[in-house]
Amino acid sequence: MEHIYSFQLEYKIKFFEEEDIFLSYSNCLKTFLTEEKPRKVLFVVDEKLCKINPEFNALLCTKITDLALEFQIEKEPLLFPGDEFEKTIDSSLELAHFFESVNLCRHSLIIAIGGGAFLDTVGFAASLTHRGIRLARVPTTTLAQCDSGVGVKNGVNAFEKKNFLGAFQPPVAVFNDPYFLSTLPEKIYRDGIAEMLKVAMIKDVDFYHDLIASDELLKQRDVPTLKRLISRSAHLHIEHIITGGDPFENGSARPLDFGHWVAHKLEAMSHYTLSHGAAVAIGLVIDAHQAFQRHFITQAELNEMVDFLQEMGFNLKHPLLKEKKTLLKGLEEFREHLGGELQVTFPKPIGCTQQINSLYPDQIEKAFQFIQSL
Amino acid sequence: MEHIYSFQLEYKIKFFEEEDIFLSYSNCLKTFLTEEKPRKVLFVVDEKLCKINPEFNALLCTKITDLALEFQIEKEPLLFPGDEFEKTIDSSLELAHFFESVNLCRHSLIIAIGGGAFLDTVGFAASLTHRGIRLARVPTTTLAQCDSGVGVKNGVNAFEKKNFLGAFQPPVAVFNDPYFLSTLPEKIYRDGIAEMLKVAMIKDVDFYHDLIASDELLKQRDVPTLKRLISRSAHLHIEHIITGGDPFENGSARPLDFGHWVAHKLEAMSHYTLSHGAAVAIGLVIDAHQAFQRHFITQAELNEMVDFLQEMGFNLKHPLLKEKKTLLKGLEEFREHLGGELQVTFPKPIGCTQQINSLYPDQIEKAFQFIQSL
Repeated sequence: MEHIYSFQLEYKIKFFEEEDIFLSYSNCLKTFLTEEKPRKVLFVVDEKLCKINPEFNALLCTKITDLALEFQIEKEPLLFPGDEFEKTIDSSLELAHFFESVNLCRHSLIIAIGGGAFLDTVGFAASLTHRGIRLARVPTTTLAQCDSGVGVKNGVNAFEKKNFLGAFQPPVAVFNDPYFLSTLPEKIYRDGIAEMLKVAMIKDVDFYHDLIASDELLKQRDVPTLKRLISRSAHLHIEHIITGGDPFENGSARPLDFGHWVAHKLEAMSHYTLSHGAAVAIGLVIDAHQAFQRHFITQAELNEMVDFLQEMGFNLKHPLLKEKKTLLKGLEEFREHLGGELQVTFPKPIGCTQQINSLYPDQIEKAFQFIQSL
Repeated sequence: MEHIYSFQLEYKIKFFEEEDIFLSYSNCLKTFLTEEKPRKVLFVVDEKLCKINPEFNALLCTKITDLALEFQIEKEPLLFPGDEFEKTIDSSLELAHFFESVNLCRHSLIIAIGGGAFLDTVGFAASLTHRGIRLARVPTTTLAQCDSGVGVKNGVNAFEKKNFLGAFQPPVAVFNDPYFLSTLPEKIYRDGIAEMLKVAMIKDVDFYHDLIASDELLKQRDVPTLKRLISRSAHLHIEHIITGGDPFENGSARPLDFGHWVAHKLEAMSHYTLSHGAAVAIGLVIDAHQAFQRHFITQAELNEMVDFLQEMGFNLKHPLLKEKKTLLKGLEEFREHLGGELQVTFPKPIGCTQQINSLYPDQIEKAFQFIQSL
């Protein structure tokens, strides 16, 4: 005898685009906590952020003191490392153990402040503990603000595979605050620009032209420009997840992962010394060149995006590109991770998405030759 | 600026109540796989099951050989230990590593065959890997068939707390097959009866009377009786989860956990040498006695359920009951695990549920005296 039981769950993500939420005059966090009514709040902060921006810790402590008048908050924020090579199950378990030690319950709230890898690790720990403690994310890098920070995934690297362990667990809120961007080191600042280019090329031709034309202002970290471009990228990412009909990728839904099969493998091969953004920039060029060979995009567009990436400071050559055989294993791993059939995302034409089910060895070869000739 | 993004996800659980699904004449698994279309199938089997029922492994291998004609299946089933004390994050990670080694992808399917603790460990591993590989459960104990096997949770014990790490991840299918029940050792067979009594006492007075009146047939493991009672219990559990409006317990939804604050703590204190069912039997008596003191149930009902449990072979006295102070810490941990406010489930009257927000020390004291006087 067979019974089919079914039920629906609603997920809600509050997405705030606000300046200076940790400054004393901002009521943004207070209003949010009043609505959210967490039993207890814990702030977890990316150790690197405090090194990059030494004033932030004092700012946060003042904010916590203020919020603690109304809410039950762990007074001391937890500082935790969160670089990509530290994105491990051991880190997530260490965090879970800490959550246990400060008695967080299922009705508590963790507010994680940091870069994408850090948010992944903390988010995974939160999703494991008590089968899921609510998480609010404050992404502090261009990359996390325009891409992963607004997504529904978390995960850690394991068995030499990127994000092999993880969970789909949407944050209850995301706060994108440009405050954090001015103090980012050049290399970290640049990383998000590769993801913006990625989503523009496969989703929004107007955004693509806006981005390409904003090269000078981006280099100057012009705040209005950053706010506009990051906002566009973040909304494109989140709308893709939500309107795609398959936010947890159970079926055939595809993430926005143009250029990512190369990027994921390069990162793993470099033992995560190559940043995600730098790897994505290389991956974009390799797949854009194949899209050009297939007449999906023009030579002019290919050159334009390569120039833009170089202008932004990306080094598109990398010694690991010579290990082509190992790199190509990334394509097989990509197929496995995403579930069965290979699907690679290409632009066709600029601003639109085309799924490709197989790549041609001679086209890959030419793309590698092209990037090495730059 | 605040945007609210929301989306809905549908979850579906196929619940099969079928006899002898691993015997050669049964098409149940074949039909299911034809519908489910997994990229690859892996069977994971509770090591203890193969010890209890040595013929099963041969039966399964024949079934796999048959199914492998039509489906891509890992030929060798994985045998894995799964007692409560082995329900650890290390076990789940070992499993995840195995899944990686046999190249399971997100469109693969894991069929886990075993008791409740085993299904928890395998389910947690499946939910972690690639952010969730589909899981079908074949519960092989009375306990797992009538309760946890049909639920949406999985988890492992950590930091000395039961199910501290875990995930809400509904199985795609559950197969309840009475085949497994005849060979269960007495102690394991008995365990599920405590959970049946639990759900009957707080959910269904007719089921309660049926259960109490079935004591002799239950002792004889009469198959029609077992099928009827397990089915009633399983459907009550799954309907409670699904119609409660909060299947992942994000809000105020309460699981069916009458007697469970004592049970969870006793299990942990015994380092999981005391089985869940045996601990639940004790927890039921302690909370039923308090319900009696509050005039929620009658003295006759209290005596009737105690007699029934003793008739079924449960030993309701345990040396750990003397460590009352430690045991009472379980009440605080229970509050934390479930999220904030204490809510204890009592029957009022038999067959109906009453949530209680605080227990009285003198009533707890009397309940302890009662159970120790048995």
